[in-house]
Amino acid sequence: MSKSIFYHAGCPVCLSAEHDIIELIGQENVDIVHFGEDRSRIGAAEKIGVKSVPALVTPNGNVLHLNFGASMADVKG
Amino acid sequence: MSKSIFYHAGCPVCLSAEHDIIELIGQENVDIVHFGEDRSRIGAAEKIGVKSVPALVTPNGNVLHLNFGASMADVKG
Repeated sequence: MSKSIFYHAGCPVCLSAEHDIIELIGQENVDIVHFGEDRSRIGAAEKIGVKSVPALVTPNGNVLHLNFGASMADVKG
Repeated sequence: MSKSIFYHAGCPVCLSAEHDIIELIGQENVDIVHFGEDRSRIGAAEKIGVKSVPALVTPNGNVLHLNFGASMADVKG
């Protein structure tokens, strides 16, 4: 995969970080996944190591947790 | 300011994140500050809101804490 993936859940911390990431790396270089709108992506994200949102998964699979909006337990509710 | 600033303290989490950030946004777009090598930068970083390392401060002044390597208290020792 060549794009990064930004996972979030719509929280204020998430939206602020989403804006920053798009500014920094360019909208065309990142897929945005909102767990509230696509819960089917939660499992794969957890498998790759996403523990909280917002999180950025780099093209080589590293997970960068950006600040702290909500834990994955909160996301799953 | 037009560059981002990446603050770190040489920890393994820091170095991994530094590599990711350089890959994502390009070395020419980020100044790297190692607190262990330049302790005089600690005060200004704390003032802008850096609470732990590694952290990326965007050109518009937002602080993104990336994963968690060490608190600023640890950095100051």
